Amino acid sequence: MKRSVLKFGGSSVSDFSKIKDLADYLKSRINKNEQLIVVVSAMGKTTDDLLTSVSHLTANPNDKDLAMLLNTGEQQTISFLSLALNDLDVRTKPLTGYQAGIETRGHHLKSKISSIESDFLENLFESNDLLIVAGFQGFNEVGELTTLGRGGSDTTAVALAAALNCTCEIYTDVTGVFSTDPRIYSNAKRWEMISFEEMMEMSALGAGVLETRSVELANNHNIPIYLGKTLSDEKGTWIVPNDQMLERKAVTGVALDKEMAHVTITYPLDSKTFLTDLFYKLEGAEINIDMISQIQNQEGLQLSFTVKESEEKDLNYLFDVLRESYTNLYVKIETTYCKLSVIGAGMRDMTGVASKIFKTLLTSDIPFYQVTTSEISVSYVVDENYGEKAARLLCEAFDL
Amino acid sequence: MKRSVLKFGGSSVSDFSKIKDLADYLKSRINKNEQLIVVVSAMGKTTDDLLTSVSHLTANPNDKDLAMLLNTGEQQTISFLSLALNDLDVRTKPLTGYQAGIETRGHHLKSKISSIESDFLENLFESNDLLIVAGFQGFNEVGELTTLGRGGSDTTAVALAAALNCTCEIYTDVTGVFSTDPRIYSNAKRWEMISFEEMMEMSALGAGVLETRSVELANNHNIPIYLGKTLSDEKGTWIVPNDQMLERKAVTGVALDKEMAHVTITYPLDSKTFLTDLFYKLEGAEINIDMISQIQNQEGLQLSFTVKESEEKDLNYLFDVLRESYTNLYVKIETTYCKLSVIGAGMRDMTGVASKIFKTLLTSDIPFYQVTTSEISVSYVVDENYGEKAARLLCEAFDL
Repeated sequence: MKRSVLKFGGSSVSDFSKIKDLADYLKSRINKNEQLIVVVSAMGKTTDDLLTSVSHLTANPNDKDLAMLLNTGEQQTISFLSLALNDLDVRTKPLTGYQAGIETRGHHLKSKISSIESDFLENLFESNDLLIVAGFQGFNEVGELTTLGRGGSDTTAVALAAALNCTCEIYTDVTGVFSTDPRIYSNAKRWEMISFEEMMEMSALGAGVLETRSVELANNHNIPIYLGKTLSDEKGTWIVPNDQMLERKAVTGVALDKEMAHVTITYPLDSKTFLTDLFYKLEGAEINIDMISQIQNQEGLQLSFTVKESEEKDLNYLFDVLRESYTNLYVKIETTYCKLSVIGAGMRDMTGVASKIFKTLLTSDIPFYQVTTSEISVSYVVDENYGEKAARLLCEAFDL
Repeated sequence: MKRSVLKFGGSSVSDFSKIKDLADYLKSRINKNEQLIVVVSAMGKTTDDLLTSVSHLTANPNDKDLAMLLNTGEQQTISFLSLALNDLDVRTKPLTGYQAGIETRGHHLKSKISSIESDFLENLFESNDLLIVAGFQGFNEVGELTTLGRGGSDTTAVALAAALNCTCEIYTDVTGVFSTDPRIYSNAKRWEMISFEEMMEMSALGAGVLETRSVELANNHNIPIYLGKTLSDEKGTWIVPNDQMLERKAVTGVALDKEMAHVTITYPLDSKTFLTDLFYKLEGAEINIDMISQIQNQEGLQLSFTVKESEEKDLNYLFDVLRESYTNLYVKIETTYCKLSVIGAGMRDMTGVASKIFKTLLTSDIPFYQVTTSEISVSYVVDENYGEKAARLLCEAFDL
């Protein structure tokens, strides 16, 4: 009996008619004698609405209570979907993160899944056709409700697929993975198949389709993921283990990340402890940094890195704290830049990619402020208003 | 250190400004060095809104999913209240019914509390100033979420007070217990103190202030209950053990219950099994019946009883089933009647009460269709449109 985890995001369940359509679709899958675990997010804008409500009560909401509040969003969706499926005589078992045994650790709003009770879930199939699990949520070691943070529902889905050892289908409003954002480059190609490695780079570099952590998780457990459009016949993209990829192109995609901030810190040469303190505090605040590079000039040591633009507030606070111990610290946070990345697992064994990129940018007078390279990608920090143009030029240059 | 359970209904937390005011009030109590357990219901009309949403998905919602859905209402309130209190630097612990260890059994939407983990709650006071518990909800033996049905939040509050052995304050939008509904008789008196026994009769007979089961629970555990108006200085009513009542009047109240249906069943003389079957089925459907009386006439045996008007649908279904085995069954369900009751623990040792009631009704030509008496009350079934007039006349007659 074929078993799959299916995940549907907030836009796929944003109103009751969509929930009914989804129920019809799921029943049609059940009728094909499939065993399904369905993961759903909160309906449409529910989460945002709840956060707005909170602003009427406090300017500094605590994470514990927020997590408990946000949990109600997905709990409502699983109840509604279950009611709709019961109306079609499908035997369902709706489960909150807690009930599904999704244990988490860490920060209440950015928790990581530590374990899932797979045996318990296995047994539920004896008396149910379909399990419905609330995405994005879990509970911690002291029984408090938690949320998994950005892209959390995808993580729930992949983690369940790993625990129940089956494939995972993630449905959104985009049709799979493209060489670059079709809104930027209309001729962008959709890939039928892409490797975890490439997808991880794409995600990490800001191709929004899927959060890095979900792809990493799938990669670690070798869980193939299908990315498709909700209730659509259009073909999507399969993300598969690297060894399942046959011939690979040098370059598979161009990613553009506008939601990033570029940080430049100048600090005195003699300060031995600064970097340790900085990275310790960044870790404590769970701020991921990226594209690190350091140079030395007459003013002192200069460190540059990029972070998610959303971290700016936390970052400013962090530097205020640091300044108490490091008075002569110069910090510049620039949010008008964007990160442009060229990805391709083929890069490593094919030459000329880097030079081609440089040539493309230089010939069209697009300045860049920082460059970092990985095994299978090259990233540039450029002005936000040059970003889309540069992305288009590179897609043309690499025939994507 | 004084400890109390405080319960606030949906109308007391119907918007964010009310929640902030409540938070201020609770802080003032904390500052008096009190230890509080606060029980709250879903905000305003949340529960009704959720039920309306369900109607878009199915005409026959299943109880299990409904209970899970409704649970989100109180979960949101405890989160919001906790956020508001944290903003005032009060250390709170919000708990869903499950987290508070409120175990229930029975029908998902009409569950009864079977146990509460009082030790667990006790310990929470070591690191918290105040506990916030979601009213109306719990979890069953297989870990499914349940609701306690009508007046469920009051039951939660009283059960917690019993488990933690402290008094219970229940706040609504009415100022305590009156001799009769002030909307019916403007001169109605508010009692400063009333016995459990009398309150139970008042509730059972439809004086809506507090559900019978809550009063019974308080009575069984000797937990004094204060009934007061939310955030008001007006004095409320203490409901206390019977022996704590000093002198008692013959009659303390007149209750009017319009939400009742009067059922008359005529069935063949020879049917031995009918009553057993009937009561067995009523129990199965958890329909409480009241004011039972039976007479015999030429058509056969005639049984009359009253039920909550809300049970009419279930009742009709039940009789359809019965008709399959009892073809010549005649059933009449009358919803245009109401139940008028006169209550007073003093009745039993004072004479003339019944006769006074009869005289009052007869002299003003108010017909009644059924009469039942208990130790401390007399109830009449009269036409709904005579109800209020009769209530007023009786209040005047007994100087209430």
